[in-house]
Amino acid sequence: MNKLKTSLIAALTVFSATASLAQTDSAMIKKIYAEALTNGKSYSNLEYLCNTIGPRLSGSPQAQQAVEWVFKVMKEAGADTVFLQECMVPHWVRGAKEVGKAIGSGPSDVRELPICALGGSVPTPEEGITANIVEVIGIKGLAALGKEKIKGKIVFYNEPMDPSFIETFNAYGKAVQQRWAGAMEASKMGALAVVVRSCTLTQDDYPHTGVMGYVDSISKIPGCCISTNGANWLSSQLKKNKDLKFFLKMSCNTLPDAKSYNVVGEIRGTERPKEYVVVGGHLDSWDLGTGAHDDGAGIVQSIEVLRIYKALGIKPKCTIRAVAFMNEENGGRGGKKYAELAKKNNEKHIAAIESDAGGFTPRGFSSDVTPAVKTKIKSWRPLFEPYGVYEFDRDGSGSDINPLKEQNVPCLELRPDSQRYFVHHHTAIDKFEYVNKRELELGDAALGALIWMITQHGLQ
Amino acid sequence: MNKLKTSLIAALTVFSATASLAQTDSAMIKKIYAEALTNGKSYSNLEYLCNTIGPRLSGSPQAQQAVEWVFKVMKEAGADTVFLQECMVPHWVRGAKEVGKAIGSGPSDVRELPICALGGSVPTPEEGITANIVEVIGIKGLAALGKEKIKGKIVFYNEPMDPSFIETFNAYGKAVQQRWAGAMEASKMGALAVVVRSCTLTQDDYPHTGVMGYVDSISKIPGCCISTNGANWLSSQLKKNKDLKFFLKMSCNTLPDAKSYNVVGEIRGTERPKEYVVVGGHLDSWDLGTGAHDDGAGIVQSIEVLRIYKALGIKPKCTIRAVAFMNEENGGRGGKKYAELAKKNNEKHIAAIESDAGGFTPRGFSSDVTPAVKTKIKSWRPLFEPYGVYEFDRDGSGSDINPLKEQNVPCLELRPDSQRYFVHHHTAIDKFEYVNKRELELGDAALGALIWMITQHGLQ
Repeated sequence: MNKLKTSLIAALTVFSATASLAQTDSAMIKKIYAEALTNGKSYSNLEYLCNTIGPRLSGSPQAQQAVEWVFKVMKEAGADTVFLQECMVPHWVRGAKEVGKAIGSGPSDVRELPICALGGSVPTPEEGITANIVEVIGIKGLAALGKEKIKGKIVFYNEPMDPSFIETFNAYGKAVQQRWAGAMEASKMGALAVVVRSCTLTQDDYPHTGVMGYVDSISKIPGCCISTNGANWLSSQLKKNKDLKFFLKMSCNTLPDAKSYNVVGEIRGTERPKEYVVVGGHLDSWDLGTGAHDDGAGIVQSIEVLRIYKALGIKPKCTIRAVAFMNEENGGRGGKKYAELAKKNNEKHIAAIESDAGGFTPRGFSSDVTPAVKTKIKSWRPLFEPYGVYEFDRDGSGSDINPLKEQNVPCLELRPDSQRYFVHHHTAIDKFEYVNKRELELGDAALGALIWMITQHGLQ
Repeated sequence: MNKLKTSLIAALTVFSATASLAQTDSAMIKKIYAEALTNGKSYSNLEYLCNTIGPRLSGSPQAQQAVEWVFKVMKEAGADTVFLQECMVPHWVRGAKEVGKAIGSGPSDVRELPICALGGSVPTPEEGITANIVEVIGIKGLAALGKEKIKGKIVFYNEPMDPSFIETFNAYGKAVQQRWAGAMEASKMGALAVVVRSCTLTQDDYPHTGVMGYVDSISKIPGCCISTNGANWLSSQLKKNKDLKFFLKMSCNTLPDAKSYNVVGEIRGTERPKEYVVVGGHLDSWDLGTGAHDDGAGIVQSIEVLRIYKALGIKPKCTIRAVAFMNEENGGRGGKKYAELAKKNNEKHIAAIESDAGGFTPRGFSSDVTPAVKTKIKSWRPLFEPYGVYEFDRDGSGSDINPLKEQNVPCLELRPDSQRYFVHHHTAIDKFEYVNKRELELGDAALGALIWMITQHGLQ
């Protein structure tokens, strides 16, 4: 046998092994999709979580009910073990419905506007705050206006999300700064409160809440958000009447930290049970809607991965953990606790995958991984393309698994179509009826398929 | 200069020309998307078409209103010329609300079920039809049962759409046979009428109408569809009671053909005005909803391409025609008329593109073209991927442009995400409020971008 022939045969053997491997993978992925789409339970689970339990703000009784329910459902889905991870969470409550009014030239020239407190805000005094209101476009706009024009006033941040971004999260990332840092920056300049344009690309009447930041070194002033229609109206009024006043009353409050839990369900690995692949979402939600897309979807999808594997009799080589993280929205304590315990227990995490971008049709997976791992993940793309999952280039992963990055865990995130996400995000209409069954289930399957590839082939 | 050097320089020149061409294309596509997403008019146009004009069944007064409105809106969008193409269309009317009842063992054991006539159906006698009902799974199921068990009965076709298909149109294509041919096949075996399970993957209470077929050589029996929930209930009852009867009453009717029109709006090409690229959808719709996804979306998207080109000052090399085809749903007369006139006038069509799969986020373009043209289209994929448009492999194009295929016109179709299409298809909930503005506008832009590539570079 000559050398050429030997290497040719060797090459062919590798090729045919790879091809048959790809065939096995492709057949398994097909099964996973068929199971998700034909016998799926994620949709009915989501209905229960949203419509029977309801909104699940950290520290609320519903958050506790949700913990107990997820424990039970993970068991029913076929988890070998389910356990809780205790963590203390911030306990902010909204209080009575907030009131925001624009006050024009006389007592009859008053208009109530759709506002709500931003998560974590301090309350106003009981009698509310009445002051002149000044419009700025983002934090840059505030700085440009200068202290003299801000002091003693309410600041109205009115930077809209930029519709020309294709990926709406990019538009969100840019506009959300004024929500997060707006009160701190305005307070430094002597403002009394801030009213922030809702982060959405739609023109609607819903205030879109979300967390705001404070630091102890800066005086804490109240922050609320206003619907985009309300913001547009307010802006148009301010053009006509620079002396417009705003009245704001909010009775929200931060109570002492509450005890809560992450819920973790496992299917034990057959070959390397001490190696873990995490798939998770967050169990807490804002209080205005019922947290269907944000992030009931991620919760029921993670549980569904366990159910699909059990239903198909897949025995993964390493352990799969579905994790329902607590307190993503206003503290991230669950994610931190999970990473802390992973470190303490010296657990080897092969990968962590988050689903926290809504229950919409999956388009791909973003990741925070080494270039070599990225290349490996991208090599799987042909297996996913028949399912419309083709985007593997993007960087980024979810905030619950973020603390695992410090332990060099490859972190990934399911990336669904983002066009409708900010219609519902943090509003009264983040509800079950706006989730499509098949779109949700395609996410279940995409997660299940990716986990199949990782448990079979590793990421390194 | 040696030959190697010369050819190297030539190659580099070609390469750099291609690269700069790609850069121009990419910049233009970016502009088209920004214009669609920032200043888009398609969404407000769709609102008018659906909510002010309403359902537009061929031959109806609303179909005529829609013709006049499109004529006006194409002008406003900046078309150089707008003209009508007269065609005679079938004029079927639904009549009074249909009644379908399952009749059990006694007069108190009667349940009304959500049914409606299939498009084109003959009516029942005035007193309705009452007969035993027999369930079959598709046309194969009918054949297997044999004439003896069918004669004198009502046939209940209950083949569900298969949820394991990823692309829902594939599931539709399989299940819709019983709707189209079910009455003919059952009539051959002596059935009195057919009740057909609605074509949808959801469990709902809406009958999903759609066209049914007849031939003159087979006695015409009435056909209706029943909601999936209704079908499931009926099936479960039939398992308990083989003697179940069904009562069906419908007063639908086919009137003499009516005069109607395609509407064509043009932006004249600067270099080859006698060469045409068509973009179109169908203006008629079923009567139960307001034809928002099917196919108001395709209409406003086609008009929007004209508006975007005018707004950006793009002067296409060849002529762009937006076409609002009449009568896609129950006859296809508009599409046939367009092709007939194209042939008669010896018009050179570079390409025809249809949008008739809903106003959802675009995923790609399917096409019925030669392999060489397919390769050329696929070579453009890198320009579209940043916009989530990546599927260029699929075959197929829309039914309005289908008659142009005989003239060897390359035919393409916009392929949006199909997951929600059959939730709304041919029902009372195919309405404006179920269309997302950004998803619709991404379709406008994808069409505009593809037309840019075709008018700049041709397809051959």
